[in-house]
Amino acid sequence: MAKRPIVTLMTDFGTSDHFVAATKASILNIHQEVDIVDLTHEIPAHDVFAGAFTLRNAISLFPRFTLHVAVVDPTVGSARRPILVMTDNFNFLGPDNGLFSYIYQDETVNRVLHVTAQHYFRHPVCPTFHARDIFAPIAGYICKGVDPRKVGDEISDYVRFDTPKPNASDPKMIRGAILHVDRFGNCFTNFTKNEVTLEGIRAGGRLIVNNREITKFGTHYAEAQPNELMALFSSTGLLEIAAAKVPAANLLQVRRGVEVVFAIP
Amino acid sequence: MAKRPIVTLMTDFGTSDHFVAATKASILNIHQEVDIVDLTHEIPAHDVFAGAFTLRNAISLFPRFTLHVAVVDPTVGSARRPILVMTDNFNFLGPDNGLFSYIYQDETVNRVLHVTAQHYFRHPVCPTFHARDIFAPIAGYICKGVDPRKVGDEISDYVRFDTPKPNASDPKMIRGAILHVDRFGNCFTNFTKNEVTLEGIRAGGRLIVNNREITKFGTHYAEAQPNELMALFSSTGLLEIAAAKVPAANLLQVRRGVEVVFAIP
Amino acid sequence: MAKRPIVTLMTDFGTSDHFVAATKASILNIHQEVDIVDLTHEIPAHDVFAGAFTLRNAISLFPRFTLHVAVVDPTVGSARRPILVMTDNFNFLGPDNGLFSYIYQDETVNRVLHVTAQHYFRHPVCPTFHARDIFAPIAGYICKGVDPRKVGDEISDYVRFDTPKPNASDPKMIRGAILHVDRFGNCFTNFTKNEVTLEGIRAGGRLIVNNREITKFGTHYAEAQPNELMALFSSTGLLEIAAAKVPAANLLQVRRGVEVVFAIP
Repeated sequence: MAKRPIVTLMTDFGTSDHFVAATKASILNIHQEVDIVDLTHEIPAHDVFAGAFTLRNAISLFPRFTLHVAVVDPTVGSARRPILVMTDNFNFLGPDNGLFSYIYQDETVNRVLHVTAQHYFRHPVCPTFHARDIFAPIAGYICKGVDPRKVGDEISDYVRFDTPKPNASDPKMIRGAILHVDRFGNCFTNFTKNEVTLEGIRAGGRLIVNNREITKFGTHYAEAQPNELMALFSSTGLLEIAAAKVPAANLLQVRRGVEVVFAIP
Repeated sequence: MAKRPIVTLMTDFGTSDHFVAATKASILNIHQEVDIVDLTHEIPAHDVFAGAFTLRNAISLFPRFTLHVAVVDPTVGSARRPILVMTDNFNFLGPDNGLFSYIYQDETVNRVLHVTAQHYFRHPVCPTFHARDIFAPIAGYICKGVDPRKVGDEISDYVRFDTPKPNASDPKMIRGAILHVDRFGNCFTNFTKNEVTLEGIRAGGRLIVNNREITKFGTHYAEAQPNELMALFSSTGLLEIAAAKVPAANLLQVRRGVEVVFAIP
Repeated sequence: MAKRPIVTLMTDFGTSDHFVAATKASILNIHQEVDIVDLTHEIPAHDVFAGAFTLRNAISLFPRFTLHVAVVDPTVGSARRPILVMTDNFNFLGPDNGLFSYIYQDETVNRVLHVTAQHYFRHPVCPTFHARDIFAPIAGYICKGVDPRKVGDEISDYVRFDTPKPNASDPKMIRGAILHVDRFGNCFTNFTKNEVTLEGIRAGGRLIVNNREITKFGTHYAEAQPNELMALFSSTGLLEIAAAKVPAANLLQVRRGVEVVFAIP
């Protein structure tokens, strides 16, 4: 028996209105035998970066050929294009506004298509709800067996932003930033093991955020004492600042965008 | 291979307690091969109108014969009846308290049944949790193949409220209202293209809400300047008041129920 | 055709980050044909008791052999063990921190295993995300057909806390507590029909919470007048303090842990 295709859905729609349900209905309207998995619908409204970063963290373990539909789309209905991104592992559908910037960086991209196959759209297309009228039906048809390469024309000028990288021009004073604060108040930085090395830590490297110094480097949360800050490499491969049972972001009084410095003596 | 039946679920249960899970378990307990789709569980507690309006907006694209289970039920356990509404497109299960008022108006209703088939209920029926003990098992049995017409007796005196319509008795000054404020702060009015016509707009029609005038009529959000209010027809067929990237409801300081006037010179 | 296995998922991850999606991906990565049902992801962060209590209330109606994955895991990555609990009805996967205390009490437990089958884990195991790297893949393999008894070694010294019971040493003055306040503000106590008996009520028993007396005993919410408090036996088998359309917890100004007394003259 053929497996049911998997479609994931990530939006900034929230879950209290009808938007997510109408989008799912529009997929099921075309092809009923699909497993739809919610990535999250709580991306802050219009926050394309948060969507891009969440997508980066959420997708890697989905089965090959999973179709990821991602809609954080403040310019829906304007000239911005609907696109399909085909990588070695997955297909992605969404607006061409930078939402797939981490994908372009992390995955092997085989082609990017401007989705133009209007005969697959729901008509009339509402200019404020492409999730329902363009992305969902295209997803449905791909699940039904339509060749994804047939939904539009290849483009190379798709929109991407530079993902924020640490500035390591001075190896003694590497400047990074907080990219995300999670539900527990843990702060995800953009430092990887390339910047915050074991050697740097052993040499007495100090992590400095909002004038506070974090000297404890560990592997899991319970190592910290109550109210003690610690740094560890999170499940995303990024350095995370955490605290045991209390939100590190509160202790530090920080939020996304705040600078983090790794200073090596 | 037979398709798996689809059951949607809309409640005011929220998602932090066990209520939604126990309801789903009760469906699966009767019939396991079902696809359950959450419409939303964030209907404000006891808010039958909000439930009715969300149902109106969410359902149209679900595949034919989808069973919609909707439970916003402040009088659960009282004499209010559990009902099944059969339309040309769908079946609906829920309390007889007006929750299906938009369905009665918008769909072709074939019959409404008072659900009395107690042999399908979970026993003992808890008077505070009919979702788990009546609606879910009935849904499960319908998915299992029980003829929906067999779950009760036809009634004609089901409860319905008049859905709020604009007052167009004076064609120069049509009075409507805000029916819903969504997650983005967009305000859904009850104006349709019958009231806010292209002719009216061209003739200089002005939309007035809370002493503020909205003169921009557009098609998508990005047309508005920052902090500028605009009106457009939303994906629900209703006139919506929006603003680019900021919540229109905050700019206007309005919420559900506030009057909206369309004035034509 | 074989039924698709059901896996439920309960966590304190919230739904705004990537954690839930990455956990589901990790299950689907091993076995794609699974129905994953969310119990809730809104357990308060690190609140093992709330998780245990929600699990107690949510699971009973799931089909036999459902696999319940529950992760409220403040000491993830420490020496606390991952365990599999096998009962007559279900399997449970999660951390050995007391999260299954109600299960040990309410279900017939056949065996508890320390999960040690590292060849089924995702590697490298991240010390902060066992949901993704241990529990999810083990769940996937069990769904795929791996004998649950093969994932580790039987233990008997698993962690359990005493579930809070009413103190009935004085039959005229039984002392209980509020275990949970739900989304509607209803207060779930730990009184059952063993303590709050019909005889006790008929004899003039009074329920006292935060210096307020509740004298109305009923069966469903609509029996109460606006702002009137009432007690009823909830769908969980526990006595619940409610009010019609307003949150009883607000009227009483109480939260979890507050004492409730049933006094019989």
